[in-house]
Amino acid sequence: MIYLDNAATTQIEETAFSAMLPFLKGEYGNASAVYELARNSKRAVFNARKRCAEVIGATTHEIFFTSGGTESDNWAFIGAYDAWKKKPNEGSGHIITTAIEHHAILRTAEYLESLGVSVTYIKPDREGFIKASQVLEAIREDTFLVSVMTANNEIGTIEPVCEIADAVHGIRKDILFHTDAVQAYGQICLERFASHVDLLSASSHKLGGPKGVGLLFIKDGVKLGPFVRGGMQESGRRAGTENVAGIVGFGAAAETAFAGIDAKICRETALRDRLLAGLSGITGVIINGPYESGDNTKRLPGNISICVGGINGESALIMLDREGVCASSGSACASGAREPSHVLRAIGRADDEAKGSLRFTLSDHNTEEEIDRAAAIISEIVSKLRERNRF
Amino acid sequence: MIYLDNAATTQIEETAFSAMLPFLKGEYGNASAVYELARNSKRAVFNARKRCAEVIGATTHEIFFTSGGTESDNWAFIGAYDAWKKKPNEGSGHIITTAIEHHAILRTAEYLESLGVSVTYIKPDREGFIKASQVLEAIREDTFLVSVMTANNEIGTIEPVCEIADAVHGIRKDILFHTDAVQAYGQICLERFASHVDLLSASSHKLGGPKGVGLLFIKDGVKLGPFVRGGMQESGRRAGTENVAGIVGFGAAAETAFAGIDAKICRETALRDRLLAGLSGITGVIINGPYESGDNTKRLPGNISICVGGINGESALIMLDREGVCASSGSACASGAREPSHVLRAIGRADDEAKGSLRFTLSDHNTEEEIDRAAAIISEIVSKLRERNRF
Repeated sequence: MIYLDNAATTQIEETAFSAMLPFLKGEYGNASAVYELARNSKRAVFNARKRCAEVIGATTHEIFFTSGGTESDNWAFIGAYDAWKKKPNEGSGHIITTAIEHHAILRTAEYLESLGVSVTYIKPDREGFIKASQVLEAIREDTFLVSVMTANNEIGTIEPVCEIADAVHGIRKDILFHTDAVQAYGQICLERFASHVDLLSASSHKLGGPKGVGLLFIKDGVKLGPFVRGGMQESGRRAGTENVAGIVGFGAAAETAFAGIDAKICRETALRDRLLAGLSGITGVIINGPYESGDNTKRLPGNISICVGGINGESALIMLDREGVCASSGSACASGAREPSHVLRAIGRADDEAKGSLRFTLSDHNTEEEIDRAAAIISEIVSKLRERNRF
Repeated sequence: MIYLDNAATTQIEETAFSAMLPFLKGEYGNASAVYELARNSKRAVFNARKRCAEVIGATTHEIFFTSGGTESDNWAFIGAYDAWKKKPNEGSGHIITTAIEHHAILRTAEYLESLGVSVTYIKPDREGFIKASQVLEAIREDTFLVSVMTANNEIGTIEPVCEIADAVHGIRKDILFHTDAVQAYGQICLERFASHVDLLSASSHKLGGPKGVGLLFIKDGVKLGPFVRGGMQESGRRAGTENVAGIVGFGAAAETAFAGIDAKICRETALRDRLLAGLSGITGVIINGPYESGDNTKRLPGNISICVGGINGESALIMLDREGVCASSGSACASGAREPSHVLRAIGRADDEAKGSLRFTLSDHNTEEEIDRAAAIISEIVSKLRERNRF
């Protein structure tokens, strides 16, 4: 098997698994109880929180664990709305986000629209970039939230998030700035993010941690309504018994990912460029996202998104699967979706082009041999599909 | 260590751990992707769903996995409200629940009150029971939801939930009936519940499964708004990458718990009665919840809740911890709470009595030796505390 779908999910890192194991066995205490067994859980959760905080330059009490990136995104939007509603304000309320966000953002924005909130969806340029000036132009008097993703899950574009956040706060300090960093956390350096953004979502299973756990960074002093209500866990801001093993795994995975992030980026970039070179024999390929593959400040190191003329992406995936290659067409998170990707549409791909889209997302665990073999398999499958379609 | 806090959380069962293990290692596929690795995850999630469904007499497509009991409770309430709002209705909307629900219910009800919904909190009798007639009397024209817990987490009272649900539906079929079965699922037989209630919440870590996963049963045809929005997971009703390992562990734990439930109940009841007998030397003890300890249709088999005169529950817990006994005073889920338990207040305990409350929740893994040792330790600690308070 050659796994090239690391943006969908990742294998749990050995460091994360080892860290989790005791908490799946004898260390089963409820982190909210008072006895020694429980205190062990509490300490472990605290240490994980510290690790997850440090890598974005946050303090421990600014990190709130959730069930994943989707919940974090929902919380940021619903919580911002609930906090805003309480102010005496004349407008209907206004949110600025982008047309290429993950569905966790878009569906929640649509829900708030159904409650009367206005939402502006900024259109990206043809490489997927959002400009600070576009966001500034969209600000209204009743704007209470701006949300721009750190990096796009399909096309890998890294947005100038800190710059946009600073521009927004330069004009209006009271607007909350959120970023969905699910695809970026653990993949690129985010160490200064906590001093620029108010809210940040991340997910454990995208960086070698377990599924079912994520976090929302809430900057000190930011007013945000709760999303999951009940007990007093997470300083009273997110109820529900702490997923101790999951949180511990997340913390260990974050530590591993960020400790070696420069080497990781370097290795993934080299593998990506190798795969791109291996695919250069295929004609009629459009690269989605930023073109300058060498510039890692603009594109996620492990991401390749292409539209291949004359093939159907779904069919290619099935044939790739038979050869043991795991890849994706559009976002795996949006399973069941049959419409052409909203991201590819937003950067100007015609529906016909978008149908031939393929996404390969690499990790530093991939080997050069895997990449070479994958390139050969992909090239052959594209030929076969084109031949088949010709008759 | 003698662990007598199984209502707070449980150790993961060996069957559940073994079932989870592959999905924490090589089987890391995203259940929503299309390749073989992903299909393994999808199949495993399906099998877990089947197991979790069967034990309450539900079909597979009526089970929706969540991040835990708290999220399930939030979803039931918020989702029922969102579904109701869409109807042309003149009233403010009305919910009936009880004064002894878990905070996951009470805090969510309070939130809906802040949106203008009326909520009736039914008061239990002195043993913690809610009567169907009380619920029927509270029904208004704009009542859209009734929620009565299956069993109480503090005092162990098992409510006549199916009877109440039938009574409500006998009068008004359009009222949704929800039950928080977090403390009952895996502890008592629930095989006919799916044919009586519309919505049911359960949590994995209360029955030997991992933390961070739960379920909401939504009966076929029931209209319920979403709670976590985004991708199309869980038939489009609960977004977020499936927590495959957690779900698999939940399924295996449910199978284990329910397969041997009669033997489990029998063993836990015997251990509980043994502990109660062992504590009979302590004077000034009030048993909370149903008194007839032998009747397992009325009280959770493993639950002992007592108020001990002349002691402080918190101090007792600290001393018990030093002797290796893990127990609770009130609900461990409501950590940080310093007020006397709302459940004990609701069944008529004075604040002074409630301060001396202790809860021991047993599992069938406890041994008779542990129980005898615990009884001796508890008795001695109560004597010491009373002596100390005398001077």
